[in-house]
Amino acid sequence: MAAGSKGRNPSFGLDLALVHYPVSNKNREIIGSAVTNLDLHDIARAGRTFGVENFYIVTPFSDQQQLVSELLAHWLHGPGGAANGLRKEALEIIRVLDDLEAVVDRVAAKRGRRPTVLATCARPQAKCRSFAETREALYGGENFLILFGTAWGLAPKVLAMADGLLPPIRGEGEYNHLSVRSAAAIVLDRLLGER
Amino acid sequence: MAAGSKGRNPSFGLDLALVHYPVSNKNREIIGSAVTNLDLHDIARAGRTFGVENFYIVTPFSDQQQLVSELLAHWLHGPGGAANGLRKEALEIIRVLDDLEAVVDRVAAKRGRRPTVLATCARPQAKCRSFAETREALYGGENFLILFGTAWGLAPKVLAMADGLLPPIRGEGEYNHLSVRSAAAIVLDRLLGER
Repeated sequence: MAAGSKGRNPSFGLDLALVHYPVSNKNREIIGSAVTNLDLHDIARAGRTFGVENFYIVTPFSDQQQLVSELLAHWLHGPGGAANGLRKEALEIIRVLDDLEAVVDRVAAKRGRRPTVLATCARPQAKCRSFAETREALYGGENFLILFGTAWGLAPKVLAMADGLLPPIRGEGEYNHLSVRSAAAIVLDRLLGER
Repeated sequence: MAAGSKGRNPSFGLDLALVHYPVSNKNREIIGSAVTNLDLHDIARAGRTFGVENFYIVTPFSDQQQLVSELLAHWLHGPGGAANGLRKEALEIIRVLDDLEAVVDRVAAKRGRRPTVLATCARPQAKCRSFAETREALYGGENFLILFGTAWGLAPKVLAMADGLLPPIRGEGEYNHLSVRSAAAIVLDRLLGER
């Protein structure tokens, strides 16, 4: 299967950001969360699979930024990448920045225009944009930056600053407590998976 | 949103198994893999979200079975569940068994008939059953047991014993190295997610 064999538009522009501050805790207080190693691996691998350009880790904490740098060094320049080149290829899409404004600016500079910023949330919200509509717009050339929250989700001010929200992912029944790793995989598949 | 509000058939029968032996390593040798804590959490949470009845951890190694029992005890009967009841609710669907034959027997006993066993594989294989066809059969009343492999995937003998295989999950291009956690989430969404 060659890369272009499916005849799909390869020119779409999609970036992801995983936000560690500001996010909510269980009691709806605003906190900064710690970086989780497997978030980086799983979401970078899914991002690489579905053609995401960059996966931004958003944290203002220098010790957390340092942790991410050490993890990436192991895989990009150290023994990790030598032993597993496929993992290296995935983690190469990761970038670390202080805050969301810096991410939006970086993506805008790279693409020559500001991306449409879509937040994700496990609870229903206003200004939802359906997956089908977003998929069509993506393949039509609109650039998107999709935000995922750690801990108990993106802070209300992040939801408010986004241009729109993707709908919550629902299965049977009431239970909807996916890990952010699972949610990101499903969102990417809904937007970019084979149909 | 009430549980039955979507008017979908609540009587489907779907179980998952995560196989730790026999699986392949990078050199296509048959190995037994170690249990990964976040596999249990992520796949149980996705399973609970999408209405999976049981999520079987398959390992013949007593130290690994013991590890799973200790993890489950923390969340089901210890401080984990007390602090986070939603996590407890997800992990309740986990069962640990020695081998796949025991899983098939257990599911058959529970449902009164042997389930259709579908394996998953990142590489294209014969006897593929499409996601659309499997989804339709699932909602039509056919029971399925879906197998996921750890390490570098299910051993050839497991693929051979399955009744069929689900297609590999592909995105743009050649890269298809999703984590098993991401793959399981996408498979469940394709079979049971809202449409």
